[in-house]
Amino acid sequence: MEKPLLIKVNPKDNVEIAVNEDGIKKGTAINEGLTAVEDTPQGHKIALVDIDKGGEVIRYGEVIGYAKDFIQKGSWIDEHKVNLPSAPPLQELPVATKVPKTMPPLEGYTFMGYKNLNGSVGTKNLLGIMTCVQCVEGVLNKAVEIIEKDLLPNYPNVDGVMPINHNYGCGVAINAPEAKVPIRTLKNLADHPNFGGELVVVALGCEKLQPEILFEDVESKNVVMLQDEDGFEQMVKSIVDKCNEKLEILNSRKRVECPASELVIGLQCGGSDAFSGVTSNPAVGYAADLLVRAGATVLFSEVSEVRDGVHLLTPRTINEEVGQKLKDEMAWYDNYLDMGQVDRDANPAPGNKKGGLANIVEKSLGSIAKSGTSPIVDVLSPGEKAVKKGLIYAATPASDFVCGTLQLASGITVQVFTTGRGTPYGLKMAPVIKVSSRSVLKNKWQDLIDINAGVIATGEATIEEVGKQIFELILEVASGSKKTWADHWGIENALCLFNPAPVT
Amino acid sequence: MEKPLLIKVNPKDNVEIAVNEDGIKKGTAINEGLTAVEDTPQGHKIALVDIDKGGEVIRYGEVIGYAKDFIQKGSWIDEHKVNLPSAPPLQELPVATKVPKTMPPLEGYTFMGYKNLNGSVGTKNLLGIMTCVQCVEGVLNKAVEIIEKDLLPNYPNVDGVMPINHNYGCGVAINAPEAKVPIRTLKNLADHPNFGGELVVVALGCEKLQPEILFEDVESKNVVMLQDEDGFEQMVKSIVDKCNEKLEILNSRKRVECPASELVIGLQCGGSDAFSGVTSNPAVGYAADLLVRAGATVLFSEVSEVRDGVHLLTPRTINEEVGQKLKDEMAWYDNYLDMGQVDRDANPAPGNKKGGLANIVEKSLGSIAKSGTSPIVDVLSPGEKAVKKGLIYAATPASDFVCGTLQLASGITVQVFTTGRGTPYGLKMAPVIKVSSRSVLKNKWQDLIDINAGVIATGEATIEEVGKQIFELILEVASGSKKTWADHWGIENALCLFNPAPVT
Repeated sequence: MEKPLLIKVNPKDNVEIAVNEDGIKKGTAINEGLTAVEDTPQGHKIALVDIDKGGEVIRYGEVIGYAKDFIQKGSWIDEHKVNLPSAPPLQELPVATKVPKTMPPLEGYTFMGYKNLNGSVGTKNLLGIMTCVQCVEGVLNKAVEIIEKDLLPNYPNVDGVMPINHNYGCGVAINAPEAKVPIRTLKNLADHPNFGGELVVVALGCEKLQPEILFEDVESKNVVMLQDEDGFEQMVKSIVDKCNEKLEILNSRKRVECPASELVIGLQCGGSDAFSGVTSNPAVGYAADLLVRAGATVLFSEVSEVRDGVHLLTPRTINEEVGQKLKDEMAWYDNYLDMGQVDRDANPAPGNKKGGLANIVEKSLGSIAKSGTSPIVDVLSPGEKAVKKGLIYAATPASDFVCGTLQLASGITVQVFTTGRGTPYGLKMAPVIKVSSRSVLKNKWQDLIDINAGVIATGEATIEEVGKQIFELILEVASGSKKTWADHWGIENALCLFNPAPVT
Repeated sequence: MEKPLLIKVNPKDNVEIAVNEDGIKKGTAINEGLTAVEDTPQGHKIALVDIDKGGEVIRYGEVIGYAKDFIQKGSWIDEHKVNLPSAPPLQELPVATKVPKTMPPLEGYTFMGYKNLNGSVGTKNLLGIMTCVQCVEGVLNKAVEIIEKDLLPNYPNVDGVMPINHNYGCGVAINAPEAKVPIRTLKNLADHPNFGGELVVVALGCEKLQPEILFEDVESKNVVMLQDEDGFEQMVKSIVDKCNEKLEILNSRKRVECPASELVIGLQCGGSDAFSGVTSNPAVGYAADLLVRAGATVLFSEVSEVRDGVHLLTPRTINEEVGQKLKDEMAWYDNYLDMGQVDRDANPAPGNKKGGLANIVEKSLGSIAKSGTSPIVDVLSPGEKAVKKGLIYAATPASDFVCGTLQLASGITVQVFTTGRGTPYGLKMAPVIKVSSRSVLKNKWQDLIDINAGVIATGEATIEEVGKQIFELILEVASGSKKTWADHWGIENALCLFNPAPVT
């Protein structure tokens, strides 16, 4: 039988995670004094000591739950044996009490990016097409087909066409208080660095989201208004013509050497398992620290996966104001979920649980590892643009597509995405680097996973080594000198706006 | 100067609508004793009498608002001159008090449809592909590209491939009370008559919306589970192979003659103007009556455009139970909008107002005209399947895409869509017949509008004549012997689920 392999994150932990692919069988002598008393699947927790009924189950040095009944040493601690602790009360959380010291700057790292007039730097050269309402989508998609087939081959320096199709714009409560979220998101998506300051806008004419709402300088925008056009063929022609002009301009752009401080990197996880918190997420956290040291902007997100570990974050905020904004975002979300009568523990998906995550607390602690150890210099509301350098918390739902869309609105130009169970996720607007938490996933998905952090669990590499590898791949991908697997295959998930206001 | 042309809907009305394309100019003698005292644009209201401050403004024989100040006879009554009346209190509304008499049956009408084993009849022969979560979309779309390019040409009897991509499935509060709406919608979309009982299901593996939730008989379904596949190329191959098997089966289907009673027709309007309520919507209402007489199922929808005229509908419900369900659906929506702090009058879009609709009451009264004069035999919650024959109220938001998606879930196989301002809307799952409210729109959009009801305003045709024309076109389109303009061009708007529960 294979040597039993377990992994512990923090010396205080009274559980360890089974690393072996087939798990650890009942009766296996794990070490002197510890024998598995039942079968434990890969990624799941084994009790290192007897835990009394009501006793603390500790992982990441934090209480992830309380034993429902007596748990015998050597048992498999599955989700049903653990009660959920209550979420940290926001009011009492200490703010800016443990601001990490600034680490020594990392100098000399650069990438080849597209410089924009407004100072931002793109990692792709895309023709962006903003839509004001879903009504135009059917016509726009026909125009995009023509552009991709007939025009793009003439413009080899342009990476592609990106129609920003979405469900917003009409049939929505555009004056409701929370309508600001989708509107802000669309405004900021339109301004994404990868569009090079050029944009074509397709509107219908009678929609609620008039172009003036999105663009203050609407006169200078290239708006095709479908209700002004004489029928379908004319609509398509007008869009194609406007796009052709823009493609001509975009095609003349060239990559130039830029300091790594111009990068805006988004961090996300999806399809997590118990390894995510010990392999891929800490490695990404290490890369995040390197990025911050190089002067870059790094965003981490996902409110429902941070809420239960937020007591570890508020002390890291740089001042009272940023700390309060973090609490405010958490409170907003608590209220949003309450209104929908949502059970707080409803976040972990079946795959998370199968992967060994007992509940949202354990998932949160693992998720937060992505943030590394830097001070949190700012907090963004959903879809707000990042303006500071350093580590920023961008409040978003944890849904991969909503989070991805909101991070794009915040201005990320590369995303790093960790996954345990595996997802073939990709965004068109910015490259997505996928990092697996387990070697078995990388072995199965050779042509989808860019970096395997599973080697950390088996001792083949350290967190630092994989973190450095992620950092270096970010620079290559941002430079266009290396393609992510998602970009190689052209895997594109649709954008998904966050609209907390009603539809009408 | 052109002869001034005005239109009045109900003898009780104290306003008329300007029909002339350029409106009616100040000083124009409209008739003996009525002269325009200011310029009035096309589609807008002119006061037939002096209206005191606080006096009733009456259109469709109903109060659409109260004069904010004294309105002089011959004035243009624009939206700013009218106060909104309060919505009819639901409790007090009479139910089943004016159930219309059943009209004589229309016999002998048939269409050529695809009969399904479960008794439903399709109007298209589509390969349906259900997705359990958005994670699979990027990979699925690549498979669909291959299927459309390499496989479809071998199966000339198949009309197309329909991937049911959506934002639901994970990162959502799947146990929240209102989660039942999107889940029910997806279940019923999967069962759409135009898929012929065949279906391929693409799941990820770890998502919240496990295939078992959508399909009781999941064993018999053709599920491709991406996390079970060895990488991207294998995923695509598995999807393509499964689809190929299904295409073989679908290709052998043949249209057969079916009674018109097997039709399930959805009615909707979008980009409405003041003509919608006097031309296109009443013509559609006449067609709805013919359909009901022929034994078919007819759905009308759009809660926020019915709410202010619901006192005209509750008396038409066939019994206490159906009437109560109508009130319940209105109450549910009142509460949903309240929670989002929505102003009730936020529904009319800028284009509606430009088109002459002063407020939601006027818009509602025009919208309801689509329902014709039949008894209301049933009321459906959003996404519920229609099971009865006759006129049914299917409660949905008014958003064109949300309403369209929910009507498809309810089982419509043809949709009739009226528009005043103009929208190039199209659905892939069922043909959409577009009816214009004004001739000027049809003249401008020759290659998008299927039927022009604008001729009613100018007296060139009657409501009955255009209604009959719509009825006959429905039979032709359902038979596949005539293509709608949207299908001719392949205009396809994305599906848009209604999810009143939070995302997480």
